[in-house]
Amino acid sequence: MRVLVTGGAGFLGRKLAARLLADGALGGAAIERLVVADVAPAQLPADPRLAIVTVDLASDRPLDALVADCDLVFHLAAVVSAGAEADFDLGYRVNLDGTRRLLEALRRTGRRPKLLFASSVAVFGGDPREPITDTTHLTPQTSYGTQKAAGELLVNDYARKGFIEGGSLRLPTIVVRAGRPNLAASTFASSIIREPLAGEEAICPVSPETAMYVLSPRRVIDAFIHAAGLPDAAWGWFRALTLPGITVRVRDMLEALERVAGPQVRARVRFSPDPRIQRIVDSWPPHFRVRRALELGFAADPDFDSIIRAHIEDELDGQIR
Amino acid sequence: MRVLVTGGAGFLGRKLAARLLADGALGGAAIERLVVADVAPAQLPADPRLAIVTVDLASDRPLDALVADCDLVFHLAAVVSAGAEADFDLGYRVNLDGTRRLLEALRRTGRRPKLLFASSVAVFGGDPREPITDTTHLTPQTSYGTQKAAGELLVNDYARKGFIEGGSLRLPTIVVRAGRPNLAASTFASSIIREPLAGEEAICPVSPETAMYVLSPRRVIDAFIHAAGLPDAAWGWFRALTLPGITVRVRDMLEALERVAGPQVRARVRFSPDPRIQRIVDSWPPHFRVRRALELGFAADPDFDSIIRAHIEDELDGQIR
Repeated sequence: MRVLVTGGAGFLGRKLAARLLADGALGGAAIERLVVADVAPAQLPADPRLAIVTVDLASDRPLDALVADCDLVFHLAAVVSAGAEADFDLGYRVNLDGTRRLLEALRRTGRRPKLLFASSVAVFGGDPREPITDTTHLTPQTSYGTQKAAGELLVNDYARKGFIEGGSLRLPTIVVRAGRPNLAASTFASSIIREPLAGEEAICPVSPETAMYVLSPRRVIDAFIHAAGLPDAAWGWFRALTLPGITVRVRDMLEALERVAGPQVRARVRFSPDPRIQRIVDSWPPHFRVRRALELGFAADPDFDSIIRAHIEDELDGQIR
Repeated sequence: MRVLVTGGAGFLGRKLAARLLADGALGGAAIERLVVADVAPAQLPADPRLAIVTVDLASDRPLDALVADCDLVFHLAAVVSAGAEADFDLGYRVNLDGTRRLLEALRRTGRRPKLLFASSVAVFGGDPREPITDTTHLTPQTSYGTQKAAGELLVNDYARKGFIEGGSLRLPTIVVRAGRPNLAASTFASSIIREPLAGEEAICPVSPETAMYVLSPRRVIDAFIHAAGLPDAAWGWFRALTLPGITVRVRDMLEALERVAGPQVRARVRFSPDPRIQRIVDSWPPHFRVRRALELGFAADPDFDSIIRAHIEDELDGQIR
């Protein structure tokens, strides 16, 4: 089978690509070719099955060549939340138009390829006291959430018409991301764990009581792989699932950091409120009841301590500074 | 004030335009100019305030000239449900891209004009046993519903960013429409009342037990006028409202027809099942609880008999054939 990962140079894209190459197969079918596409070339170890291509979803270029012969697409490419909020036009061009051009190219193959679209819990918003369920309406309070919600609608309609298979996975905030902070409003949630563990100071722009719905990189990669193996009928009459996560306050995250790495590591986090970030994060409801995804076999992390330990294992070779 | 009605050559567009000209003002502000735009010139009586323009939302042409100096837009133009289902590309070009181009043109005015977008209860779908509330998720089962749901998201985001004011009104099935049947899957709901009252036979393509959520032309025009007068804060954190309607089965509609016009008129309706139409209509849930719209002062018709009587008064000069 031939697989495409868009946004493949990003943190999750590279992890997913590496996992696909390591597994060598998906649902019993060998992966013969893996195309990893992004605006910049993805940094991945050479592999005879791997093709690294650069493509700008913000351009109007049709994407037919990119998806030619492709059986399965993981569509992770996006301008992230604060980025789409800062550059309205770029957000729409990449997140909405880019997704639409990808869907059009997949439709034109005539082979009904499978698409898994990385949506986000940023599609929800409004009253954060109400827990989100499988039937909660999408009321995004950011352009990013709006674009992801519109993308879900398109994916559902293209699949309903028989142009593609698959659906959308709504990702919780992914913690702990490796690398540097990005433009996502949620980037601090990784920084306040990652930087202290690497011996650096970190700034937390939101209050300790801020609650978030989070999932580890390990589990989200598992979720994409699991989703690729679902029978198409499992998606039901609307093809979007909120992934299981856990709800933690910033305070809980820092207490877990102290339990795992000690008080001197936790002491490297300093609070410096940023009302713009606080407002965006507060628009994401933290409480979820996601029965459908659990029934379909998706799983959250057991607790935040294990999320930190997984980061130390996967990104720090087991070493805390 | 300067007002634009898109889709102004259609049944509702013409009624709305005529009402605006007759009222002469909206919320205390005189209507100095009314632009009525559609793919074909609207048939309306001459009026010094009235400009009739032709514009094709399916073209890529920017709409800046159309919205220049405009304070308020009623955006009714759309490829209807069965039309968008039959021509996938045209539906997206008009209903999604056209709405986006209109929003972009309004944004470029820099004057934050007010937009009222005609959405539809076709944004809902799936399990028709569940009543639709103000917090039900949008799970459209048609391309038309998908495009309207995406349009709502865009309207909400453009308003949130301060580019426009206003919001979306989700229209129930409008009954009784005057004129000829159109490509909407719901067109029969008007035909089975309108044609018998005009002395003609009508064919009903769905079963007598088929339930629909309906609103009269009078009440939907009232709703657009009422919405134009709402303070912007009334829209809340997601700018879409499902309008109040009444739920009637085809059987109830025909019994009302018999009560109002007699058994010989009702006998002009013949059933001839069309599974394609039945399937589309069955995907629209018929049961609604729309507290927000009622609280904001929108109102449904009291019963179906009064909907028929209003049609006889407004379209047939009080005469039944």
